[in-house]
Amino acid sequence: MKYIKSNFHVEDVNLQKLAKKFDTPFYCYSYEKLKKNIINFKYHFRKLNPLICFAIKSNSNLSIIKEIKKLGLGADVVSKGELAQALKAGINPKQIVFSGVGKSHLELKYAIEKKILLINSESKSEVFEIEKIAKLKKKIVNIGIRLNPNTDAKTLSKISTGKKGDKFGVNEKIFIELVNYIKKSKYINLKCLSVHIGSQIFENKPYEKMLKVINRIVSKIKYEFEYIDLGGGIGIPYQNEKKIFNYNNYQKSIIKYLGKYNSKIIFEPGRSIVGNAGILVSKIIYIKESQSKNFIILDAGMNDFMRPALYGAKHKIIPVNKKNKSSNKIYEFVGPICESTDKFLSIKKFQKLNENELIIICDVGAYGSSLSSNYNLRSKPAEILIKNSRIIIAKKRQKLRDFI
Amino acid sequence: MKYIKSNFHVEDVNLQKLAKKFDTPFYCYSYEKLKKNIINFKYHFRKLNPLICFAIKSNSNLSIIKEIKKLGLGADVVSKGELAQALKAGINPKQIVFSGVGKSHLELKYAIEKKILLINSESKSEVFEIEKIAKLKKKIVNIGIRLNPNTDAKTLSKISTGKKGDKFGVNEKIFIELVNYIKKSKYINLKCLSVHIGSQIFENKPYEKMLKVINRIVSKIKYEFEYIDLGGGIGIPYQNEKKIFNYNNYQKSIIKYLGKYNSKIIFEPGRSIVGNAGILVSKIIYIKESQSKNFIILDAGMNDFMRPALYGAKHKIIPVNKKNKSSNKIYEFVGPICESTDKFLSIKKFQKLNENELIIICDVGAYGSSLSSNYNLRSKPAEILIKNSRIIIAKKRQKLRDFI
Repeated sequence: MKYIKSNFHVEDVNLQKLAKKFDTPFYCYSYEKLKKNIINFKYHFRKLNPLICFAIKSNSNLSIIKEIKKLGLGADVVSKGELAQALKAGINPKQIVFSGVGKSHLELKYAIEKKILLINSESKSEVFEIEKIAKLKKKIVNIGIRLNPNTDAKTLSKISTGKKGDKFGVNEKIFIELVNYIKKSKYINLKCLSVHIGSQIFENKPYEKMLKVINRIVSKIKYEFEYIDLGGGIGIPYQNEKKIFNYNNYQKSIIKYLGKYNSKIIFEPGRSIVGNAGILVSKIIYIKESQSKNFIILDAGMNDFMRPALYGAKHKIIPVNKKNKSSNKIYEFVGPICESTDKFLSIKKFQKLNENELIIICDVGAYGSSLSSNYNLRSKPAEILIKNSRIIIAKKRQKLRDFI
Repeated sequence: MKYIKSNFHVEDVNLQKLAKKFDTPFYCYSYEKLKKNIINFKYHFRKLNPLICFAIKSNSNLSIIKEIKKLGLGADVVSKGELAQALKAGINPKQIVFSGVGKSHLELKYAIEKKILLINSESKSEVFEIEKIAKLKKKIVNIGIRLNPNTDAKTLSKISTGKKGDKFGVNEKIFIELVNYIKKSKYINLKCLSVHIGSQIFENKPYEKMLKVINRIVSKIKYEFEYIDLGGGIGIPYQNEKKIFNYNNYQKSIIKYLGKYNSKIIFEPGRSIVGNAGILVSKIIYIKESQSKNFIILDAGMNDFMRPALYGAKHKIIPVNKKNKSSNKIYEFVGPICESTDKFLSIKKFQKLNENELIIICDVGAYGSSLSSNYNLRSKPAEILIKNSRIIIAKKRQKLRDFI
């Protein structure tokens, strides 16, 4: 993704031309970027030879998941729908882990039938429920237990998941109780210890704390876990921050604290795989001038892209066609939804914009389309994948008759 | 909606039995409550004989809109989809107003073709766009202009819409410019001044300020508006607050400030019509005990009901079957979604709960199903309308194959 002669291109496709063909707003993904992210992720952890399970919740588009599968990743799923989608994309059940605090009876049954690698359980009750189903089906089911390491990920409170007060996982005491319980069970086989401490993590410290907790517990209980699932959470820069996660230090810490255990490491990355591989292309419907600022009213709204409204997330906005003239006013980029929440970003000294011009909301590959809705009875946008200059319609724009 | 012998009923339908039939989670609406709200709303403003346009964005379920239509209301729409839905429900185009800051060219064309009562424009550019289309189609189009009265609604900043810094409407100067411009236009006819200052308003003060501004401007420009559209925004209590909006004072103020103008008043209520007419019924999948609190893990998540995650809204939670035993622990009601945001409410001294029991999230008729999504590839819930003990499936639960 780059400008060629002032015109933004995804791989070698001119975005202005693409927008004429597909109408706005639409998501556009770069296969090159996706591939690069996966290669990099593998390279960063090459000494661990981990199983990398893509977190489907971050992007559940079938075409995207198919590409991710071809690039060698498994899947981390959190619902029957996500598991079905992963299987539909051709992912081997033996590379699928099922996470989540509220797996229903039907979801557990489905997962057991599909013989996936692991069901990572998050509570006593869930373990008992799995055992009950396994007994009925006369099967031995492989599970993990999610430990809540009581580690503050120092991240946005809305996306922290590994503190004592969070709903996720079980504490050390219950973890040990469950290990002992499962040892005696005929129907469940404990293969994995799993953790996941949050999202958008840039520091090594929280991970190191988490690894220390795992090390302490595993060495204490002397149980051989075939897998240790470290979850995801590695951050990506959304603004111009210089934040870069130090993968090398993380790998070193993992080897330092867990190397001796001979457990296969599992990662569940989402954002770091697909986040910067997607953009949202939108047209300026109206510009509303006022003395202090101009409202740039886009045809993309919070129903298309929820992160700014939901998390206060700030995503870079750039023009599709670069010009030299810049404006002295503040530009406030907003959507057409009848709500103040429907606001993307305020920018000073943006280039001078006109109505009908196109802009790009950056880094929306993760938690973009997957969080979209039909609020205000608006269609969900199209999703386009660019792969080696081929234009693939990864998802058609919804028609009104599809949902009203 | 009430308990009969400890069992919650919607009209005379036992909710426990209903849940067996439809599986959880599902939305359930009471026709009686809807009807009562509409009758009350009309009664409160009986001296004004207003046109009441239901804000479709608050609940866009076709069956619900049909009932609202039969009870005599028009519609306030904010997109082509909502306009199509209102027409599908049988609402007379002459009782439909079209609001919103970002109406696209296609949406305006559609609205003009359907000959709706008013397009309430929110910017200079939009007025010019309407004129252009009207000219092409050789039609005279009736419009309103939305004035931003620069009135602080003293409400949650996320749902304020009438302050200077908000994206909505035009300021006084531009309003007057537009009135003068439209006077000379052959293709647009200015029929309405519209305002809308926000949501969840309980005080009369902000409305009174708004009315003063309207009065000042209308008397200054001496333009006869056939309609004055006062928008919506009247609050409903979500917790046990004693807040009750004083309709009588509002009506008095409207007569005091606008009575002399002979303009028909339009209201655009949403929440006050449908908010307390809907509940979300959910089953407890697991209970996770910890020392200080118990997590009550529901089968309803933020994808089903977004307001707590999006606005920090607190909706009452009550049991379907009342019992006498209460718990000393804090119960934290959370959803199954893999996110800390997926949390509904913390309650002390709730009755003792068990897994598989049913609970009710209250007052979700407005901005409930309309904001639902397929996040985590979860199906949107069913919507059931109870009307005179008849059980009407207002919307079937989505099947996985409908969206993956």
